[in-house]
Amino acid sequence: MKTRFYNARILTMADGPSVFQGELVVTDKKISFVGEHAPADQYDREINCEGNVLMPGFKNAHTHSGMTILRSSADDMPLQNWLNERVFPFEAKLTGEDIYHLSKIAILEYLTSGVTSVMEMYLTPPEIADAFRSTGMRIVQVGACNNFSQTPELIEKWYNELNAPVEEGTTPLTSFEIGFHAEYTCSESLIEQFAALAEKYKAPVYTHISETRSEVDGCIERYGMTPVAFLASKGIFNYGGAGYHLVHTTPDDWAIMKEKGIGVVTNPASNTKLASGVAPLTDYLREGITVALGTDGPASNNCLDMFREMFLATGLGKLREKDASAVPAFDVLKMATVNGAMIMRQPLTACLKEGYTADLIMLDLHQPNMQPLNHIPNNIVYSGSKLNVLMTMVDGKILYDRFDGKLNFHVGTDPEEIYRRGAEIRDRILG
Amino acid sequence: MKTRFYNARILTMADGPSVFQGELVVTDKKISFVGEHAPADQYDREINCEGNVLMPGFKNAHTHSGMTILRSSADDMPLQNWLNERVFPFEAKLTGEDIYHLSKIAILEYLTSGVTSVMEMYLTPPEIADAFRSTGMRIVQVGACNNFSQTPELIEKWYNELNAPVEEGTTPLTSFEIGFHAEYTCSESLIEQFAALAEKYKAPVYTHISETRSEVDGCIERYGMTPVAFLASKGIFNYGGAGYHLVHTTPDDWAIMKEKGIGVVTNPASNTKLASGVAPLTDYLREGITVALGTDGPASNNCLDMFREMFLATGLGKLREKDASAVPAFDVLKMATVNGAMIMRQPLTACLKEGYTADLIMLDLHQPNMQPLNHIPNNIVYSGSKLNVLMTMVDGKILYDRFDGKLNFHVGTDPEEIYRRGAEIRDRILG
Repeated sequence: MKTRFYNARILTMADGPSVFQGELVVTDKKISFVGEHAPADQYDREINCEGNVLMPGFKNAHTHSGMTILRSSADDMPLQNWLNERVFPFEAKLTGEDIYHLSKIAILEYLTSGVTSVMEMYLTPPEIADAFRSTGMRIVQVGACNNFSQTPELIEKWYNELNAPVEEGTTPLTSFEIGFHAEYTCSESLIEQFAALAEKYKAPVYTHISETRSEVDGCIERYGMTPVAFLASKGIFNYGGAGYHLVHTTPDDWAIMKEKGIGVVTNPASNTKLASGVAPLTDYLREGITVALGTDGPASNNCLDMFREMFLATGLGKLREKDASAVPAFDVLKMATVNGAMIMRQPLTACLKEGYTADLIMLDLHQPNMQPLNHIPNNIVYSGSKLNVLMTMVDGKILYDRFDGKLNFHVGTDPEEIYRRGAEIRDRILG
Repeated sequence: MKTRFYNARILTMADGPSVFQGELVVTDKKISFVGEHAPADQYDREINCEGNVLMPGFKNAHTHSGMTILRSSADDMPLQNWLNERVFPFEAKLTGEDIYHLSKIAILEYLTSGVTSVMEMYLTPPEIADAFRSTGMRIVQVGACNNFSQTPELIEKWYNELNAPVEEGTTPLTSFEIGFHAEYTCSESLIEQFAALAEKYKAPVYTHISETRSEVDGCIERYGMTPVAFLASKGIFNYGGAGYHLVHTTPDDWAIMKEKGIGVVTNPASNTKLASGVAPLTDYLREGITVALGTDGPASNNCLDMFREMFLATGLGKLREKDASAVPAFDVLKMATVNGAMIMRQPLTACLKEGYTADLIMLDLHQPNMQPLNHIPNNIVYSGSKLNVLMTMVDGKILYDRFDGKLNFHVGTDPEEIYRRGAEIRDRILG
């Protein structure tokens, strides 16, 4: 299958913020040409981009997809009530099959927002992998183990079973990395078992870290160290990895993060809605720490929308520093694309280059929020919205398009059927 | 012209957050029926809402529409550089005709975001009124006078000329209120002249107030009072009015605001992007001060998107109070609709009621970001986006719809022609 996109503006994300007029060819799962004029060839499909932008898809580097069930039913609550009254009791009732269907609602939403891959942490990895595989959507899962659910043995089993051998030069559609929920929900011995797993597989580890002030205070009380320092001291990050949130950190933490190669996945909408705080992105950028963006789950956001996250990443950074030049737009666009790919260990999805995986999106510039066309990367970060997303392609397949205006999903299931299953589960679980 | 909307979910905003299944009839410019079943009648058009939501349109209660020219060309800059290097030099070159065309870009964008009226402050009121009138979009303008542009005489002239007599029970499409730019850009004698105008017409006054810390400090240095106290002491608000921004205020200010009936138009995206701070919405709500929402202009936002503003109003409120229950969703929805109408003195646009003006929107619930349907007002505030806007009706006319998926504007001019004019102006002014 060979598709030629022509009459496009191309933002490769491989060469800074420059955009050029050109063409792009996707052959099967890969980008086979990016440049001014595609070679003369027999193409199966030729798509006139009408001057719109092609760019790498967004990487949503932290989410809990199955939590769609709680969207708009757990709002305006303090964090502890939110967890204890809404999240935990309902999650306890969810089956793997429920999570399979609820994840599909999230997959549809990712596609409308130009997301081509997600880094997921939730309860039932095999069913979640099935949901993503069945729709053609890309996922990197991480373990969600804590004192009450999942075990290091299960994480190791999934690590071996859910990582199929990867053909050279391709990117797996579903994969699995070692991970656990958080320091504050795991015993010290559990954390030591994860450090041993990291050592055994020489693998990175992923976990929530320093999301709230009280979490940090609790860790200092328990171990005399911040969560970053404590986890690093246990060897958790001897092979790198990333922390989700990292809102409340210190200069000493940053030094450890640099030394160990710990990336940050910042989740500004969630940190805002749950009043957790604002991550020090300016400090991370200055220190050269890799920062990616995530939506977190739909119970704490509630929207799986990378445009919102991009605006918040820069906006909250500016508020925090009291400096309107903080966290500039192109840095944010890198967080949402290239850096996400790096933290998810899928470098071939990072940018638009020949031989890279065809995870890409088309954004409509013929809309008033993009006019006049002053500076396209800034337009995307400061003005872009889901309404601008005309196409989302994952692994060379168009999973979503609005070429005719309508929301056309190509995921093997009718969206209304997915919504109907979601409503059934909601009725059963939430009553 | 009589249009029946059926198979709708209706959120009137007149009865709290409840939503009911029903029908709504628009006869010419007015809502002539809201209820379960519209009377049998001859309708010119019958629209199947397919279970989607009808609600009052959003009121964007503070903007500078013509600043579309600077969108994405004045980002990531400290406020003073932004004003002095980007805004003022380019604004000096804008003609009334330029602003007419640039405002139309903004009008298209408002419509995509479900905005049915705006409160505008910009340079050339007659041409701006023409732009809005020609598209059918509703505008309340306020004077933008400062030491260097406009005069109290001009403001009085426009107040008399741009306010046509209003037929009882209708809402004017364009109107004009007394206003000036801000305390820090107006001399004391200029402010006294506006107080005299307010007294002469027994009219409310609108102005930027306490947007930045340095503005407040400057006023205290100049007059020994905060901007709120100073302006009130001059009699500016003897007949009410509102302040734009009101980020940096004190309990004493709040007491004055309550006593004088000074409303607040909060502009959270602008305050974020320019690092101005976070307005104390929780305090305003507790004190019973009317709060409405605005986007501010597209050079400082850069998006004219009320969904973004709604999320930020609650999100930043939560961060500010370190309390996830602060500024709850339905309060925000009132800010974006009912309260905006009140501050703009157009109460008949506030909600969906028989006899009220037909300024209303339809939001698509058959999209993944609204699923499952747990609590519709929360869905709108926390998850809604422009992609959900299926129709924007102003004064009984559908100015925008996506019934067939495409962005269909019914504003008398082809959007591409509007964009072309915008690009010409950009090329001439920005070079």
